[in-house]
Amino acid sequence: MPPLQAALAQAATEIDATLDHILPAAEGPEAPLLAAMRYAVIGGGKRLRGFLVLEGARQFGVSRQAALRVAAAIEMLHAYSLVHDDLPAMDDDDLRRGKPTVHKAFDEATAIIAGDALQAMAFGTLADEETHADTAVRIELVRCLAKAAGARGMCGGQMLDMLAEAASEPLDEVQVGRLQLLKTGRLIEFAAEAGAILGKAPSAQRHALAAFGRDIGAAFQIADDLLDATASAAETGKRTGKDAEAGKATLLGLLGLDRARMQAERLVAQARDHLDSFGERADLLRDLAAYTIERKS
Amino acid sequence: MPPLQAALAQAATEIDATLDHILPAAEGPEAPLLAAMRYAVIGGGKRLRGFLVLEGARQFGVSRQAALRVAAAIEMLHAYSLVHDDLPAMDDDDLRRGKPTVHKAFDEATAIIAGDALQAMAFGTLADEETHADTAVRIELVRCLAKAAGARGMCGGQMLDMLAEAASEPLDEVQVGRLQLLKTGRLIEFAAEAGAILGKAPSAQRHALAAFGRDIGAAFQIADDLLDATASAAETGKRTGKDAEAGKATLLGLLGLDRARMQAERLVAQARDHLDSFGERADLLRDLAAYTIERKS
Repeated sequence: MPPLQAALAQAATEIDATLDHILPAAEGPEAPLLAAMRYAVIGGGKRLRGFLVLEGARQFGVSRQAALRVAAAIEMLHAYSLVHDDLPAMDDDDLRRGKPTVHKAFDEATAIIAGDALQAMAFGTLADEETHADTAVRIELVRCLAKAAGARGMCGGQMLDMLAEAASEPLDEVQVGRLQLLKTGRLIEFAAEAGAILGKAPSAQRHALAAFGRDIGAAFQIADDLLDATASAAETGKRTGKDAEAGKATLLGLLGLDRARMQAERLVAQARDHLDSFGERADLLRDLAAYTIERKS
Repeated sequence: MPPLQAALAQAATEIDATLDHILPAAEGPEAPLLAAMRYAVIGGGKRLRGFLVLEGARQFGVSRQAALRVAAAIEMLHAYSLVHDDLPAMDDDDLRRGKPTVHKAFDEATAIIAGDALQAMAFGTLADEETHADTAVRIELVRCLAKAAGARGMCGGQMLDMLAEAASEPLDEVQVGRLQLLKTGRLIEFAAEAGAILGKAPSAQRHALAAFGRDIGAAFQIADDLLDATASAAETGKRTGKDAEAGKATLLGLLGLDRARMQAERLVAQARDHLDSFGERADLLRDLAAYTIERKS
């Protein structure tokens, strides 16, 4: 197995173990809620965001335990956003990560509440003493997560996505870029930056990692569009071809296959440039940048 | 106007001004999201939770600015929970605080996202430097809010409520008590405690305020049941008679009118006892305890 794949698999295992430790067991009167939260977040996904936290933190010698808890918090936040995005009133999806979406496996009310509770738990995990970091570091993590997740971040992007579907005019390239930066970019940016916050890195290195995250986030999104257009549900574990079906404006649709691929490659090169001041220890992050556009799912 | 009513009105005005300052203007491409967030949280409600923060903070000489921001954060969290509770998949309500619910005034997707963004903003507001409190205080506030809002707090209570509606057997007194403690009690408890956290109060006084909050939260809930059973929608600004309609087990239903009233009175007396170590400055809190069961809406 190439080093990146081995590291990704190892990270996914450790992040799952951390989530399993943080999330209460599905017992007692609220068992269905806890079961839905666990179903939504444990054992699925590429853990791109969590891996970024772990690798970012490793650059600055941060303890694995602290990094894993922050990685778990960001994966909870990401999982909640998927649960709500899949709801009938939103994207109305039945399949996610190769299994039924939460509102299909449970019901709609449980999916709404489980998403809400995962968001609260993401913030609680960052704030908790068990996340071995001083209070100034933890409060900065909370502040940045709130920004990445809120009305000028993920929620804002989700709103733009809903508005675009209802609009009579398709979005242009600038509007699609902004939508994607908010909807997925801000959280990936924060994931890349979180290790630097944990490691109290100099501001230049913190900004370099944030910029790295922003670029691979954008590349990742184009790769997602390409997969949606060209791969099957069996390969990706979620419904494909849905962008075209929904008449959704994507960079792929606006640029065409060749120019979209070129732009993704340019973003990957740019992302790697941001790591110039980092040594060999950042090689897995460099490999990850390339991987975002080579992946098959 | 009696002192309590004047203080409640004054607090509501200041909390609204603080919310108006914190929430971005409804401008730009995400305007509908910001408009829905503002619609959900500004200019409505009794501000019981916010008032508890302000009065708790006043016992310890906390700056009004810090207390108002924490009050605003808790009101955002509370407002998000109402927006999601009112959704068709949950309680399916059309009326709230005398106006159409968010999914009626906007649409379902916007209501889901606005609730999500309000939750993120509640945590972000506590974490922000503008909330003039040191990092240890702010992180403690975040930690406690996450606990009050999560799977073992408000979300857990909401889940129990949904399960109770689907169950073949009605809940018993102990189960209803637990449901209400989680669904509304934990956040009211935290609101009462937050001022003590801000003021770095001795642990005995912090616990006394938390216990005060727990008791008036429970009394408030019984009073809500009584209003739902006896008042009209015009008086309360929301649909009434819905508990009976839904065959919902309430303490009122289980205890009967007289015993429910007696229990509420006992809780109010107990709440006031918790304030014994506080001086005259806590008189408004003592009045508030009585008001919870005397109010007409």
